[in-house]
Amino acid sequence: MERIDLKKTAGILNANDSFLILTHRNPDGDTLGSGFALMYILRSLGKTAKVQCCDKIPAKYSYMYSPDDIGEPDNPYVVAVDVADEKLLGSVIYEKYQGKVKLCIDHHVSNKEYAETLLLRDCAAASEIIFDLANELGVEIDKRIANCIYTGISTDTGCFRFANVTAYTHEIAAKLIEKGADFVEINKAMFETKTKGYFQLEAKALESLEMYFDGKCAVMTVTQDALKNTGTDESDCDGIAAIPRKIEGVLVGVTVRERTDGTYKVSLRSHAPVDCTKICTEMGGGGHARAAGCDIERECFEEKKAQLLSIIKREIDLI
Amino acid sequence: MERIDLKKTAGILNANDSFLILTHRNPDGDTLGSGFALMYILRSLGKTAKVQCCDKIPAKYSYMYSPDDIGEPDNPYVVAVDVADEKLLGSVIYEKYQGKVKLCIDHHVSNKEYAETLLLRDCAAASEIIFDLANELGVEIDKRIANCIYTGISTDTGCFRFANVTAYTHEIAAKLIEKGADFVEINKAMFETKTKGYFQLEAKALESLEMYFDGKCAVMTVTQDALKNTGTDESDCDGIAAIPRKIEGVLVGVTVRERTDGTYKVSLRSHAPVDCTKICTEMGGGGHARAAGCDIERECFEEKKAQLLSIIKREIDLI
Repeated sequence: MERIDLKKTAGILNANDSFLILTHRNPDGDTLGSGFALMYILRSLGKTAKVQCCDKIPAKYSYMYSPDDIGEPDNPYVVAVDVADEKLLGSVIYEKYQGKVKLCIDHHVSNKEYAETLLLRDCAAASEIIFDLANELGVEIDKRIANCIYTGISTDTGCFRFANVTAYTHEIAAKLIEKGADFVEINKAMFETKTKGYFQLEAKALESLEMYFDGKCAVMTVTQDALKNTGTDESDCDGIAAIPRKIEGVLVGVTVRERTDGTYKVSLRSHAPVDCTKICTEMGGGGHARAAGCDIERECFEEKKAQLLSIIKREIDLI
Repeated sequence: MERIDLKKTAGILNANDSFLILTHRNPDGDTLGSGFALMYILRSLGKTAKVQCCDKIPAKYSYMYSPDDIGEPDNPYVVAVDVADEKLLGSVIYEKYQGKVKLCIDHHVSNKEYAETLLLRDCAAASEIIFDLANELGVEIDKRIANCIYTGISTDTGCFRFANVTAYTHEIAAKLIEKGADFVEINKAMFETKTKGYFQLEAKALESLEMYFDGKCAVMTVTQDALKNTGTDESDCDGIAAIPRKIEGVLVGVTVRERTDGTYKVSLRSHAPVDCTKICTEMGGGGHARAAGCDIERECFEEKKAQLLSIIKREIDLI
């Protein structure tokens, strides 16, 4: 593995003619935005380029590409974008391209360095690096490219809200808007639109709301019945898990989701200084400081929930 | 009334020593952000400056000022920020300062030109103009000023989502982040934090959800009972009114709120090309293309609701 800079990356891209761009499984706005932006950039240099993803691309991203853009060209130079670990390529793609990725463009400092060459910068979104790469290659950023890069940046920063945003993130956004990025429509599709089932699941979860420790801890439960009755699934629960922490005064938000096998997945979200990892590690789980999780078996649910709450209380009392 | 530019405005501010800065009633992030930023800017020039608002400033804005900053200095030069019409100063302030505002700094093209001089630019937030004014005055933007201006811009653009955002809006945001603006905390306080009662009201409103016309129209009802049982009030309903339009596939979102006098306030939100004003005007109301409203009396509620739905159906069928 060789770490390379923008200039060397541009040289490699210029030296090849056919490209396969791989995105990560459960594709999000940044891996897709980076992938399709790079595809358009390479095509504007006269190259052949297609994007591949092991999972179906959610319909809300359809404005970025047409069906023909998905596939594998002949004898391609293989590039992975926003993929920190080759296992994240997902089963079929992973099996086929394991050890064969020539270039990885990524912003995760945890990158596993699986590719032959790696262009890595610790920034808000891989799409920020693609923006710089377009400039390095002398490619004019058109509206289509601007839309892809804007999508990557906006989704990976929660629309400029997360701590990963820098002054440079906004400088890039300014340039993308100058190039005609449809930021109103993109943000509407990414952040505002939810299914009817999602809203109904949210209402059911809110009905289960329990408050503890003077309103400093909120607990919500999502049952399999609630998922069935609202026609939603596990993927809808990520949005739900963010709710308890949003309640005024809450320092620790807990979401308990019942799995099909009867076990429970517990998600914690906190405000500083409460450390979710510390709490979840004691429960046999793990994660990050402000977002972590653990599992609870069905047979000892009440006991384990009481244990979790007592650990949360201890951490809140320490403040 | 004289329209003046940044340079002339800077000259006026330099020529006076004591300032009263007036904000609009029901104060929001932009009028307060503009007001407190201007206050700090003037003080850093050695002037006396205080801010006044006819309404209590919501606690979530408390990071912008201290209680001493609110008041009326002796013989002040009176400036209004983000106040399009002097009536919007609110009863007490309006009675006292009607016809006495010397300078108005505003971004509403609908400005009533009530002030002696007017610095107006059609931009996303009045705070953008305050940013330019600081530069014109040669005042270094410190962290405190950056926090105020960021608040104004972020709240008036829905955190960079609304169509009023320009490349320049992001360029200013970049500079504010360089100056240390606490954008993560500000956005959390402005957009993420809601009361427990609000969430419970949202759940109750979602329970009432009705879908019409192949899912293209969604109707939610907020009853007085729901407000009472969740400890919420009319001010919580604005967030609720935004929900039905967020449901995937919905073109017209309708929220019906029961008032204490038994009448109903109906709020419409639409996606293009459905024109809410057209629909609401036929019902005796009015508003904007994507957000409008009308009233319905209690005694003819069902009949009027059916009429509203038939007008909505007609407009949807036209697409």
